[in-house]
Amino acid sequence: MTKSEVVLQLTGGGREPVLAEGHGRAPSNIALVKYWGKRDTALNLPVTSSLSVSLDHLGTTTTVAPIDGPDDIILNGLPVPPDTAFAARLRAYLDLVRPSPGRGYRVVTANTIPTAAGLASSASGYAALVLALDHLHGWNLAPEQLSILARLGSGSASRSLYHGFVEWRAGERADGMDSTAHRLDATWPDLAIGLVKISTAEKAISSRDAMQGTVETSRLYAAWPEQVARDLATVRAAIRDADFDTLGKTAENNALTMHATALAAWPPTLFWKPESVAAMHRVWSLRAEGVPVYFTMDAGPNLKLIACRETIPAIRPAFPDAEWVTPFAEASKTGRREPAPPG
Amino acid sequence: MTKSEVVLQLTGGGREPVLAEGHGRAPSNIALVKYWGKRDTALNLPVTSSLSVSLDHLGTTTTVAPIDGPDDIILNGLPVPPDTAFAARLRAYLDLVRPSPGRGYRVVTANTIPTAAGLASSASGYAALVLALDHLHGWNLAPEQLSILARLGSGSASRSLYHGFVEWRAGERADGMDSTAHRLDATWPDLAIGLVKISTAEKAISSRDAMQGTVETSRLYAAWPEQVARDLATVRAAIRDADFDTLGKTAENNALTMHATALAAWPPTLFWKPESVAAMHRVWSLRAEGVPVYFTMDAGPNLKLIACRETIPAIRPAFPDAEWVTPFAEASKTGRREPAPPG
Repeated sequence: MTKSEVVLQLTGGGREPVLAEGHGRAPSNIALVKYWGKRDTALNLPVTSSLSVSLDHLGTTTTVAPIDGPDDIILNGLPVPPDTAFAARLRAYLDLVRPSPGRGYRVVTANTIPTAAGLASSASGYAALVLALDHLHGWNLAPEQLSILARLGSGSASRSLYHGFVEWRAGERADGMDSTAHRLDATWPDLAIGLVKISTAEKAISSRDAMQGTVETSRLYAAWPEQVARDLATVRAAIRDADFDTLGKTAENNALTMHATALAAWPPTLFWKPESVAAMHRVWSLRAEGVPVYFTMDAGPNLKLIACRETIPAIRPAFPDAEWVTPFAEASKTGRREPAPPG
Repeated sequence: MTKSEVVLQLTGGGREPVLAEGHGRAPSNIALVKYWGKRDTALNLPVTSSLSVSLDHLGTTTTVAPIDGPDDIILNGLPVPPDTAFAARLRAYLDLVRPSPGRGYRVVTANTIPTAAGLASSASGYAALVLALDHLHGWNLAPEQLSILARLGSGSASRSLYHGFVEWRAGERADGMDSTAHRLDATWPDLAIGLVKISTAEKAISSRDAMQGTVETSRLYAAWPEQVARDLATVRAAIRDADFDTLGKTAENNALTMHATALAAWPPTLFWKPESVAAMHRVWSLRAEGVPVYFTMDAGPNLKLIACRETIPAIRPAFPDAEWVTPFAEASKTGRREPAPPG
């Protein structure tokens, strides 16, 4: 099945906009058990399931409006030149939904996180876009269905349809209709994520190229699916039991194992900068001193600290510039954990 | 079989010194296919074979003399306090050969490489010691037998009995009598190894602890033996064919895969310092510019560049402080590739 056929099946072919504008807002997400490797590169179907926590107010806000002529893309207030990889990828995605080849979209999108700096702006970006397109076209799809559409843009975007803890189930079907994301019925008001920005520069290698290179050339990758299966079960239980050390340890080990499989690829993929290693050693020093803090890293140089709200003061001297997010502190007050409402 | 029984079987119990002094000299060695994981921790029997190149004049020179009373150890001109781990380990080794518990040795040993800085001084150290003990006691053992004795002190020491390319065959026997090192009948006058010293500080974790932690906790380790089997065949063929790029690529991938298995252990083992990562990126930048240079790393922060003599000038601007060794340049003139002669 092609992407177009998946879109047609979900939307029933309803391509004409029913509003003048559609709005979407979606959080970024940090995987505690990583998505690393595709079983289908066209449909972004993963080898394994994955599990993330969404970053509350950090994410993407997007407005789409139908226009005549070519797509017009505004990112963080600036027009995106049509000959960039960013524009080409977005255009190809919009091709899946536009009413006819001559019709375009004006896409105005803004991130509250650095683009392509390992903070997965493509995840919140494609999730917000899908929400905006659903709003514009009046599809009224369920979050699980929207997670399929978001996945077609970027695998990890499927998890950004929700706040809180989210599991993207790998599914088994060739068409991926069972490869959907689901919110876990759990909260953890004390959980804190600290964003440590080592670099906001564009990455030398894209996540998707690194992932594919690892699957194809790293002999260590064979051990990855089994590790994920164990880690998923462990993290689910840690969330249920509010067992912070198990959560942190499993997430850190899972992330380092992901980076290890990439390191063993050829050519080797190392996402780290020297400052990444310095930051890792600082985390380990804190733990050696008795401070309960762990980290995870995605396909980039930045660290995401995993901690409890009350230990942030003990961590701050080592990471004075970390930006802290408490994914559940606000949600527990407002109950907001469903997809961000359009508009 | 215990270490003592192995020594007894090899030496026939000839424990009385026949000379006033024994002398030994052995090169350090750099593994192109790593020794990483033991199948027997008492006898230092490896899970896999490994393959190294010896570093010519860089290594250890050792003199042993029988004395009454406790052992007296001089390292690089300074007495080693008896309560150090270094002294305890050496004493336990000498227990295997001393004529009676009351008899000691004066051991005067000097390295031309930094101790415990990832340049494997324990390898040349135990090899030189074994050569000195063989000389002192008049055992006249063959190099393969001496490689067994050296292995009992430090696994990789078995490879430091020879100059040139050396393969340590894992063997299959429980007593390890077939786990011996052998010189490859090959030379490569143009090959150059560049030692990049990131740090000469003592390591935070010993090779043997890191190795054991990896075998016991890293889920990626399961893939290591198969990788080594392939890499050994590839490196042997590359040496035979003088295929530099295959040699370099395979050695670099093998080293990074070793480090990857350690990274995926719990607690994670990362031997690198920030400057290690900076140096790795410099190597990859050189390669991207067309300079044929690769690297390998042992259980420490330092890099060993793998290059050809004629490309050293192109590499020097990026690594001005690298110490270059040409393992075969001298040997090809003198034919010296057997164990360093005693005295």
